[in-house]
Amino acid sequence: MESAIESSAQKGVIGSRVGRLTDGYEKVTGVARYGADIEHANCLAGMVLRSEHPHARLRSIDTRRAEALPGVKAVITAADAPQVLHGFTVHDQTIIARERVRYVGEPVAAVAAVDKATASEALRLIRVEYEPLPAVFTPHDALRSDAPLLHPNFAAYESKVPLNRYGNVCCHAKITNGEVARGFDRSAVIIENTFKTPHVHFGYIEPHAVSAAVDGRGFLTVWTSTQAPFVARAALSHTLKLPMHQVRVIGTAIGGGFGGKVELLDEPLAALLAIKARRAVRIEMSMLEDFHVAQARHASEITLKAGISSDGMLQAFEGTVIMDTGAYAGFGPHTTSQAMVLLGSPYRVPHLRFEGFAVLTNKLNCGALRAPGGPQAALACESTIDMLAEKIGMDPFEVRLKNAKRSGDTTPTGCELRAVALEQTLRAAAERFDWRRAVQRPSNGKLRGKGMACGIWGGSGYGAGATVRVNEDGTATVFTGAVETGAGSTIVATQIVAEELGLGVEDVHVVCGDTESTPFDMGAIGSRTTVSTGQALRQAAVDAKRKILQEAAEQLETRLDDLELRGRQVLVKGVPSRAVPLREITTTLTMKHGGPVMGLGACVMELPGFDAATYESHTLPSKPWFTFGTQMVEVEVDPASGDVEIIRFVAAHDVGRAINPVGIEGQIHGAVTLALGQAFSEQLVFQQGRLMNPNFLDYRMPTALETPHIETIIIEAADEESAYGVKGVGEPPVPPVIPAIANAIYNATGARILELPLSPERVWLALQKVAR
Amino acid sequence: MESAIESSAQKGVIGSRVGRLTDGYEKVTGVARYGADIEHANCLAGMVLRSEHPHARLRSIDTRRAEALPGVKAVITAADAPQVLHGFTVHDQTIIARERVRYVGEPVAAVAAVDKATASEALRLIRVEYEPLPAVFTPHDALRSDAPLLHPNFAAYESKVPLNRYGNVCCHAKITNGEVARGFDRSAVIIENTFKTPHVHFGYIEPHAVSAAVDGRGFLTVWTSTQAPFVARAALSHTLKLPMHQVRVIGTAIGGGFGGKVELLDEPLAALLAIKARRAVRIEMSMLEDFHVAQARHASEITLKAGISSDGMLQAFEGTVIMDTGAYAGFGPHTTSQAMVLLGSPYRVPHLRFEGFAVLTNKLNCGALRAPGGPQAALACESTIDMLAEKIGMDPFEVRLKNAKRSGDTTPTGCELRAVALEQTLRAAAERFDWRRAVQRPSNGKLRGKGMACGIWGGSGYGAGATVRVNEDGTATVFTGAVETGAGSTIVATQIVAEELGLGVEDVHVVCGDTESTPFDMGAIGSRTTVSTGQALRQAAVDAKRKILQEAAEQLETRLDDLELRGRQVLVKGVPSRAVPLREITTTLTMKHGGPVMGLGACVMELPGFDAATYESHTLPSKPWFTFGTQMVEVEVDPASGDVEIIRFVAAHDVGRAINPVGIEGQIHGAVTLALGQAFSEQLVFQQGRLMNPNFLDYRMPTALETPHIETIIIEAADEESAYGVKGVGEPPVPPVIPAIANAIYNATGARILELPLSPERVWLALQKVAR
Repeated sequence: MESAIESSAQKGVIGSRVGRLTDGYEKVTGVARYGADIEHANCLAGMVLRSEHPHARLRSIDTRRAEALPGVKAVITAADAPQVLHGFTVHDQTIIARERVRYVGEPVAAVAAVDKATASEALRLIRVEYEPLPAVFTPHDALRSDAPLLHPNFAAYESKVPLNRYGNVCCHAKITNGEVARGFDRSAVIIENTFKTPHVHFGYIEPHAVSAAVDGRGFLTVWTSTQAPFVARAALSHTLKLPMHQVRVIGTAIGGGFGGKVELLDEPLAALLAIKARRAVRIEMSMLEDFHVAQARHASEITLKAGISSDGMLQAFEGTVIMDTGAYAGFGPHTTSQAMVLLGSPYRVPHLRFEGFAVLTNKLNCGALRAPGGPQAALACESTIDMLAEKIGMDPFEVRLKNAKRSGDTTPTGCELRAVALEQTLRAAAERFDWRRAVQRPSNGKLRGKGMACGIWGGSGYGAGATVRVNEDGTATVFTGAVETGAGSTIVATQIVAEELGLGVEDVHVVCGDTESTPFDMGAIGSRTTVSTGQALRQAAVDAKRKILQEAAEQLETRLDDLELRGRQVLVKGVPSRAVPLREITTTLTMKHGGPVMGLGACVMELPGFDAATYESHTLPSKPWFTFGTQMVEVEVDPASGDVEIIRFVAAHDVGRAINPVGIEGQIHGAVTLALGQAFSEQLVFQQGRLMNPNFLDYRMPTALETPHIETIIIEAADEESAYGVKGVGEPPVPPVIPAIANAIYNATGARILELPLSPERVWLALQKVAR
Repeated sequence: MESAIESSAQKGVIGSRVGRLTDGYEKVTGVARYGADIEHANCLAGMVLRSEHPHARLRSIDTRRAEALPGVKAVITAADAPQVLHGFTVHDQTIIARERVRYVGEPVAAVAAVDKATASEALRLIRVEYEPLPAVFTPHDALRSDAPLLHPNFAAYESKVPLNRYGNVCCHAKITNGEVARGFDRSAVIIENTFKTPHVHFGYIEPHAVSAAVDGRGFLTVWTSTQAPFVARAALSHTLKLPMHQVRVIGTAIGGGFGGKVELLDEPLAALLAIKARRAVRIEMSMLEDFHVAQARHASEITLKAGISSDGMLQAFEGTVIMDTGAYAGFGPHTTSQAMVLLGSPYRVPHLRFEGFAVLTNKLNCGALRAPGGPQAALACESTIDMLAEKIGMDPFEVRLKNAKRSGDTTPTGCELRAVALEQTLRAAAERFDWRRAVQRPSNGKLRGKGMACGIWGGSGYGAGATVRVNEDGTATVFTGAVETGAGSTIVATQIVAEELGLGVEDVHVVCGDTESTPFDMGAIGSRTTVSTGQALRQAAVDAKRKILQEAAEQLETRLDDLELRGRQVLVKGVPSRAVPLREITTTLTMKHGGPVMGLGACVMELPGFDAATYESHTLPSKPWFTFGTQMVEVEVDPASGDVEIIRFVAAHDVGRAINPVGIEGQIHGAVTLALGQAFSEQLVFQQGRLMNPNFLDYRMPTALETPHIETIIIEAADEESAYGVKGVGEPPVPPVIPAIANAIYNATGARILELPLSPERVWLALQKVAR
């Protein structure tokens, strides 16, 4: 083992293809403990009674028979749980439905009992009297002037939108650049289309599972399969009105999150049951339950009118973005604004005007599914670019290249774009794909075509602390509030700390995702972990290194600047004979300064400003960093069945700096595969607010067999404001996938499809229309 | 709740009588989880096969039948566990006995099985062939030139002592000041006596219990009822040759430690079984087992010759200290040197010479029982002072006052004594006790008398880090590696952080005793926690405060110096109207600087130098701080039974600064009670190396009924080198108890008893001698 370590400690580990040290083995061998695997002494089974109605007044709830059932230890209803749930935006939801239910699956009561059978029987004994109310299931219905209101008395909405017109709207946003009329005047071609996307499930294979316990002092600990323990802690603290030091959230192993394990779901219920029963309580959702009540991707309808001059320069975009956000605001306001910003961001469009609405309907809440708003906006934008290019007879690659944003340009809301590599990704993808080559027509009667799409993504930043402890023996223990969602944050943290301290990755242990033992972190959201947590980790390692080198400089009687850490040694530059083992310095420091060397770091990334004159909404449009990518795809369409097969897929993405290329390739593969499912098959099907396909048989996701080979190209346009120049990569590859495929289908068949999924049925029907 | 907090946050909490917030409730209600309460999925029961012989060669061990027993998952012997156990001093012990066993109870093999019954049966199936060897049970036998050697081939001993003479000696120390011959020449009275004390059990009510598990990466976690998780981590790392970042030690709730839960015991066995079985393993000792193998207080024999001039000035001390340390060095070298230093420390003795021996015998190891070496030295020193005083016809109070050390004096090894309050404790105790008042002779035929004794204690220091996180909402989470042994370290940590940050104690949560989530700490040993951890905690809180005030100064456009934190607010001195809630600043800091405010602290207390010319040994004689105390007692002796009853007990101790007076009173009560047991009844009785009273029926400790009312006097002579001036208080009240009682019995009866315990039998026999 020693020799293996030496090599890694000697070489430097940033940029190397290091495999997972921890979570890989644990997941493969079954050692990893997911939400439902956390064991507690005397743990009760918690279960939730959920609304069977999409919209109804709650006349009465009688829990007396449930409470009397032997083995039942706690029953709660809205009377015990009046708290408003604290999410990211508008706080329009209570932990348990009060007075009325607004979607099928909304919690009405919860019980904790000695086992699941008893809990289940207790739910059956609870009598709820509903008075059904008229419901709305689509934004169109919800926006009608005579539509029943979901939140007739909720004051917060009134401040956002004029209630008389938009009673079921929880966000109304506007972006204006220039004067669109002038832009259209200058256009040679103007087209207008409406693009539709359905609700989509997050598709993780582990349903939500949470357990909660209170200690003797009444302090609450919650174990949950979360992407963001500190966000959960803050939300629980605010929701339950407990000071933050009394709430601990421990992230468990996660069987996929993708944005669906960020906001609170059953956590407050488990907490309240544990407080009431004074015993640990675990609530494990079934997948059936999870489908009904976990958040979904927003269904959307985007109408985009666009004009281009005959020389291929975009002149104007005018559009309306409607997001169907379900019964409560959820992530709707953000998703709406984000889609609008993204719609106008990849290309220079001098005149644009967008209007957006997040609309309430009697369906489940919607959240931040990997790149929220991204695929919806990209489908509209990138399909439109291809359509415009065709109309003016120009290669869509050329149109994109001509109009592509460059460094120093801004988003439509005025955030400056740094280190823009859209052109690089376009050229790199085109070269690898050999874009100019004509597609071979197959002899089997199938139709082949090629398509491309670009994408921009603005990631999140800020909100990370990190602590690096260099142990007495020179090994390092690293503390980060980030959680390992499977994306590889642990190995990246290991590499950063090993790099700065001249250690091998084997010498570094990462402690993560427990709000009590690790510094604050915003969580695995917004493609931010490597960028923000990485910055904090680097700073912490550098802080520890400084302390080590200061002591070494004293011992070796040299200048600090002449020293470096490498191969587990303190080296005097140019004098190899004077090297001192790191462990000698750290042992001295421990004895002399009372404890091992501690380094502190924090991410201090600032949000760029934005041009307030361009933007009207109650969410912020600026992001600390943006990145671009280009994808090219060749498809083969079976005209007999409408089935589409991916023949080739090339994805070129700018990641700023690749800390771990194999991890980045994994992220691109994962993001593309996720989007392929949403392109071809995934959609939540509702009838009168009732979900028709709440399982993985009827809700179809791609399996390994249906996943094509994905060729990745990593571009490194370093962002000088981030550690090592990194940008995030978790979400950016998602948006271009669907429009690239839609463009390729059009290229193959002449059928332009404006609505998802691109299912065999829909493709076949489109082919019939083309044939006519 | 709000109003209660306000008052505490407003007033400042250092020095106030705050009750326990956490561990009190948990212990009383049964919520606290002790070593044996830690649950693991699929946990195996570990059991240890222990030597039945005090000294024997191990001919062979056959484990085949045990391994074949269904349900047995791992069996280990010395062949699997060749590692040398890393303790505090000489490393002369292996995890499992190799080649020979040296005491009854020494581990010979260990098994892990699905339950205790199976493990127990497996132990029965292991065949061990012993060849008994001649053994030594007392230092006198061990020091004979023809004594069988316990460690005939152990090189480390040879470097310490000339083997030809002291083959069973693991430490030979000397202290010399001046010329004793000259001192005795100047003496009007010279006396010489030999004082003997027996082995004593630690008397905790929770036997040792440990569990261990390895994760997928092979990293080890050990849950153990330890006073010092970081000491255990380092020892496990060195013993098992695992890098430190791969070892995590989590301290559980402790049912008493008193120094007996510091060094490794079954921890390495549990770890090796868990590694071999790849499942969690728990080893719970029975109390019977704990009595046999956990460490004991060193039995001692101290011969002290002392001279005094007729004006009451001490002239010379000459003495020999012999500590019976059992089969391995253990804490023997330290205890021997410490007793020698303490023997010559309370009083100015111009000429002294001490020689000390830590002697190996075929009995269980000895450790650092609360004030190791203290009661042994004090019995000799303080009995001698009284005897000298009587001989020259002077009140023993006056003799002590005349000779008492003052600030600026040194210990016999040349460590400077700061802020010495021995005189203050003498005067305060005498005033409260009304020392000059003649003792009332009772009419019931019993004999009453009064006695006094002083004590010095040198505590440990150094080795503490601390982190304070001020959460977004202004509450604080504190991280310390110290563990709550029941002594109150948690509430003291809470008070220090609350004081510095202007919070109420309710706003502070302390996370402690987990090597993975907290900074380094030497542990709850050497009366150091409040002194050393306290310093680190204060520094961490001040560091966090500085960051908060810097931000506040910017926001309020004031100078940093004009700001203070009080009542959860940032106040502008003299301008109450400009106060800003702390939570506003901490929320801003979180958003702006990427995570909550983190403050770091470390204890940088330096060990004072010492005069090497005075001292010869392989342990360090210096301590970072010393403190003094005086105790006075009135006893009633029943001449018919020899039974001694405490009528009154006054204890005056200098604690530097009382952070929490109620906690200090508790420490004094506990220390005095512990010493009362050792004064009157406690001793481990051996016959041919076999323990005769390994249970709490035959080994008698005082119950609440036998515990007198103890009057405490807290003296605060601030040590300017420590935070708030604090000195430790856990051990200092132990040493004077026994000699004060022995002096009082003499005063009551005329019988001078030189050997412990002062049992009814021994007192009655002594009375018979006096009567003759």
